[in-house]
Amino acid sequence: MQLFYSIDIDNQQIVFRDEELRHLSVLRKTIGDLIHSTDGKGNLYSSILLSISKKEAIAKILTCDIKELPTNSNIHLLIAPTKQMDRIEWMFEKLVEIGLQKITLIETKHSERHHVNIQRLEKIALSAMKQSLRFYLPSVNPIQPFKDCIVKTNENTVNLFAHCEDQANKINIKDLSIQPNFNYEIFIGPEGDFSSEEIHLAQKEHAIAISLSDFRLRTETAGLIACINLLSR
Amino acid sequence: MQLFYSIDIDNQQIVFRDEELRHLSVLRKTIGDLIHSTDGKGNLYSSILLSISKKEAIAKILTCDIKELPTNSNIHLLIAPTKQMDRIEWMFEKLVEIGLQKITLIETKHSERHHVNIQRLEKIALSAMKQSLRFYLPSVNPIQPFKDCIVKTNENTVNLFAHCEDQANKINIKDLSIQPNFNYEIFIGPEGDFSSEEIHLAQKEHAIAISLSDFRLRTETAGLIACINLLSR
Repeated sequence: MQLFYSIDIDNQQIVFRDEELRHLSVLRKTIGDLIHSTDGKGNLYSSILLSISKKEAIAKILTCDIKELPTNSNIHLLIAPTKQMDRIEWMFEKLVEIGLQKITLIETKHSERHHVNIQRLEKIALSAMKQSLRFYLPSVNPIQPFKDCIVKTNENTVNLFAHCEDQANKINIKDLSIQPNFNYEIFIGPEGDFSSEEIHLAQKEHAIAISLSDFRLRTETAGLIACINLLSR
Repeated sequence: MQLFYSIDIDNQQIVFRDEELRHLSVLRKTIGDLIHSTDGKGNLYSSILLSISKKEAIAKILTCDIKELPTNSNIHLLIAPTKQMDRIEWMFEKLVEIGLQKITLIETKHSERHHVNIQRLEKIALSAMKQSLRFYLPSVNPIQPFKDCIVKTNENTVNLFAHCEDQANKINIKDLSIQPNFNYEIFIGPEGDFSSEEIHLAQKEHAIAISLSDFRLRTETAGLIACINLLSR
């Protein structure tokens, strides 16, 4: 099955534009063809192509099926972007395929990169969702200061904090018990780790310090392992 | 700690050449400096640099510590190379950081790539081992026919076979119990999946059919998930 994406749904019709319109053209879809698409919110639409022009394609909805229910536990990765951005992009693509719900890039004291092309990450999310035939489009947030993100605002949210310094009460992520209906925010630092002040702040905000491996992991490997561990429970 | 690599160890001396010699030069190591190196077999050597020339550097061993014991269960990934080789290379780098012991590239009926630069994969293995401060260098095998690899030759080896067709007795990898002192060979097919004949052959050879996700995974994502799952037990 070839999956398309549009949220422009109204009056039993779906409109495809821009990238998705180009995609329909490349695949030589014509009037009368059956189209499968998702709104990135868990639904699969089957529709029949009514018209296709240079500006837009319009399809009439035949059926709408709920294909992917929201998971009980929401996994949100908050990660410092690496100097070489392709490392984070690759990690993100894999995590979308596996079912990550949300990513936020964080600005930390030792961050080596301060600007990120968010549109590029959104494009990767869309393409990975379609490729893996998933129906939820993860949200991508622009860079935000770590100190704002680590502040605990919700009782049902657990902040998991991975840093490399010695700390007595670190929990191995494998031994962490996951509560249903809780949201998990995983904080991964930059190549040079979180600063002492940032670690102190996380402790003050009751973040749970986690360990991911006995060995030194690259930033994107740490993000990958932490999320795969939680998503594959 | 900066880790170097050499297996040229004799008479209480270590010799560094080529890439590792260049690495020593770039880091401006000079006579009398303390050098940490591994033989890729689990050992950490501390040595003092005695001489450095354009041809080689020689260091006198002070101590040798066993840093990483062989694991009970050996994990061996056998995977069809993807059309875009950088996908497999990236996956391999992550898996070396996490502790994969062996990789073999396999030639299958639907393979889209038939030649692989093995030296490049060996370089990635070495660099990832040093970067993550590990002391075991995984072995990298050149392309071999799937039909030769799937033949079960050892009683202590379990063949795990991930294909996308429906099969009644597939086991989810999360539910697979891992026996100590057994070796696990994980077979991952190409973009177009294993062929019916290959699936039949795997069944004949008593390979265990495994499922990795409810969703469609790219080849390298399948390799990543399967190995992370087994390596992080």
